Amino acid sequence: MSVPSTTPLQASQSEALDAIQADVLFNASLWVNIALAGVAILLFVYMGRAVESPRARLIWVATLLVPLVSLSSYVGLASGLTVGFLEMPAGHPLAGELVLTPWGRYLTWTLSTPMILLALGLLADTDLATLFTVITMDVAMCVTGLAAALITSSYALRWVFFGISSAFFLAVLYVLLVEWPDHAAAAGTNEIFGTLKLLTVVLWLGYPLFWALGPSGIAVLGPALTSWGYSALDIVAKYVFAYLLLSWVADNEGAVANAGVRLGGGAEGTAAVDD
Amino acid sequence: MSVPSTTPLQASQSEALDAIQADVLFNASLWVNIALAGVAILLFVYMGRAVESPRARLIWVATLLVPLVSLSSYVGLASGLTVGFLEMPAGHPLAGELVLTPWGRYLTWTLSTPMILLALGLLADTDLATLFTVITMDVAMCVTGLAAALITSSYALRWVFFGISSAFFLAVLYVLLVEWPDHAAAAGTNEIFGTLKLLTVVLWLGYPLFWALGPSGIAVLGPALTSWGYSALDIVAKYVFAYLLLSWVADNEGAVANAGVRLGGGAEGTAAVDD
Amino acid sequence: MSVPSTTPLQASQSEALDAIQADVLFNASLWVNIALAGVAILLFVYMGRAVESPRARLIWVATLLVPLVSLSSYVGLASGLTVGFLEMPAGHPLAGELVLTPWGRYLTWTLSTPMILLALGLLADTDLATLFTVITMDVAMCVTGLAAALITSSYALRWVFFGISSAFFLAVLYVLLVEWPDHAAAAGTNEIFGTLKLLTVVLWLGYPLFWALGPSGIAVLGPALTSWGYSALDIVAKYVFAYLLLSWVADNEGAVANAGVRLGGGAEGTAAVDD
Repeated sequence: MSVPSTTPLQASQSEALDAIQADVLFNASLWVNIALAGVAILLFVYMGRAVESPRARLIWVATLLVPLVSLSSYVGLASGLTVGFLEMPAGHPLAGELVLTPWGRYLTWTLSTPMILLALGLLADTDLATLFTVITMDVAMCVTGLAAALITSSYALRWVFFGISSAFFLAVLYVLLVEWPDHAAAAGTNEIFGTLKLLTVVLWLGYPLFWALGPSGIAVLGPALTSWGYSALDIVAKYVFAYLLLSWVADNEGAVANAGVRLGGGAEGTAAVDD
Repeated sequence: MSVPSTTPLQASQSEALDAIQADVLFNASLWVNIALAGVAILLFVYMGRAVESPRARLIWVATLLVPLVSLSSYVGLASGLTVGFLEMPAGHPLAGELVLTPWGRYLTWTLSTPMILLALGLLADTDLATLFTVITMDVAMCVTGLAAALITSSYALRWVFFGISSAFFLAVLYVLLVEWPDHAAAAGTNEIFGTLKLLTVVLWLGYPLFWALGPSGIAVLGPALTSWGYSALDIVAKYVFAYLLLSWVADNEGAVANAGVRLGGGAEGTAAVDD
Repeated sequence: MSVPSTTPLQASQSEALDAIQADVLFNASLWVNIALAGVAILLFVYMGRAVESPRARLIWVATLLVPLVSLSSYVGLASGLTVGFLEMPAGHPLAGELVLTPWGRYLTWTLSTPMILLALGLLADTDLATLFTVITMDVAMCVTGLAAALITSSYALRWVFFGISSAFFLAVLYVLLVEWPDHAAAAGTNEIFGTLKLLTVVLWLGYPLFWALGPSGIAVLGPALTSWGYSALDIVAKYVFAYLLLSWVADNEGAVANAGVRLGGGAEGTAAVDD
């Protein structure tokens, strides 16, 4: 048997790791998040130890999954597994250059952001149709954002996908800003929901901004600074967000447990009574 | 640092775009769908503006997702991102030749076809077990269909996966033709369900046919004609289907809202009363 | 137009198939499972022919999906589509050598193991929060296990991902060993649940063991023996497991149907009455 070729995935993995480790600032933006995600996981497991009602536990698990996915995602980036070099198309400021692209970020947002929205939706005591809407639009936003970052054949089509992703984002914003505040008011959770909604909306606007300003877009920011932008947003939008939500749930479990009649209400209501 | 290699994904992307743009007929089969999906989205958002009951809104969102996924999918194909060249194995009519394969089609069907089935299942007022069955069989059909298209090591194994995918399709057909008509009759939605069922079954039979006749199978049809075959099926099975369903829902919201007791009935029923 | 490059996926596919077919023992470990999965599917379809209550049918379909996914997965491995050569990093016992890696195994476990847990959870009559927990932790276990197998840039980071995957496994074990036995006792299904729980826990411990001992880990076992390890575990943990569960459900449908009030209870309860 002749010597087989290595799998394609491997081709750029060690080179990506070399490039990452050669850029101390870039590398730090990843490992800081790995450390913080680890601390957050331990803290959140401790904070949730006494949560018992099914609805509050569902919020707690969805929230806990955010740093769990984040930790896995950042180890994938730091190992070079989910990072690659892309040659930018004609028209791009870095046309013809190889740009280090952390595509694993966009992929894992597909898994972590629905958990944030699930926790917020349960807090707002929303209905199944609205939750389905916001989560499918969010996943579509992340997948088309990934596509925008991966296109190397045409500069214009990168921005077409950026536009499609932004349109899905508008649908998510509509639910967060228009529909769920009413639901939360009806459920009596409007105070904490208002805080978390504001934090989420403001910070989530930062992600497309760094995409547009960084090497994927008009490239006025370099890879390391852009990576720090995303990492800083992740720290607040994920760990601080989760901490605020879980603190509130731990202190107000009764309010959450009683409110839970709209989403899967039959099942959870029965379960709560059974317990 | 030595010059890193580009990521594998990129290798064929620009070449795929060149090949697509050099074939006017092929290229048109993609852009016609992008335009029609865009029109469909605007129309469906308008048609759904007055839908309020949770169950009818869930049908509306699932249906709206069909052109949304379709638009994203076709932009991915038109950019060359989700298209590649595959060298057909020995035994294949084009053995040893490089065949332009739009693998993104099979991948995105995994996301769009469950939405069609979800909308149909909600219309038929089916139970959770049947909906779970039909959607898992449908996803398995699409994933194994993707595998059939990607195998380049053995001609026989391409058809083995085609056969596996077809077996999953039979399970989907069984639910559509045998189980759901009864459920729809019980829910009083049998007239519109019958129309949409017939349209879906007939058109969905066309997809494996074009797979078998096109470059993936026995290659009596060329890439452009096969692409037009899929695109034409998509236009009717997705946009016309969705238009018929949404027109009916908009005119008969009461019938849908009242029927909604079998699937997640506890939750939605409660929500409907709350509203 | 110049001759385009083939897609990356293809590069190693025929070489992988050659390597697999050259190793009779390795190849047999795949085809034995294809044959057994086929027999299991036919048997389980026959065994489930009389199952009618929605809850028992949901258990039946989830269980039937296990050999269906397994069959598709093994055909993917046997064709070389989901197998690749990876060059192990410095520090690994096979450092610098190309190791045949059946990455499709880890990917398809993401789809098959949640079905096993869904069936067990429905049998134990668990609540939605616990089912959500165990399935998300299980998916995270499989995805990070895949990452562990794919990393070629650093030996240490392979074990970091192995550790992360194992931590998710502990969460799955906690639910199986601590939470669900109580739920099953309350539902009156504790005898069959106890058998299946023991079988699942013992066998699932074997998977990380073969990962650690095989070419992915410390490489004291070769590719063929490791593949037989996984295949033997699959035979018992999937087909024998499913046979035991379905036999019991067929004989005790009444017990399952009546117990079904905790998970989606509103919907299923209503549906059961409707039937």
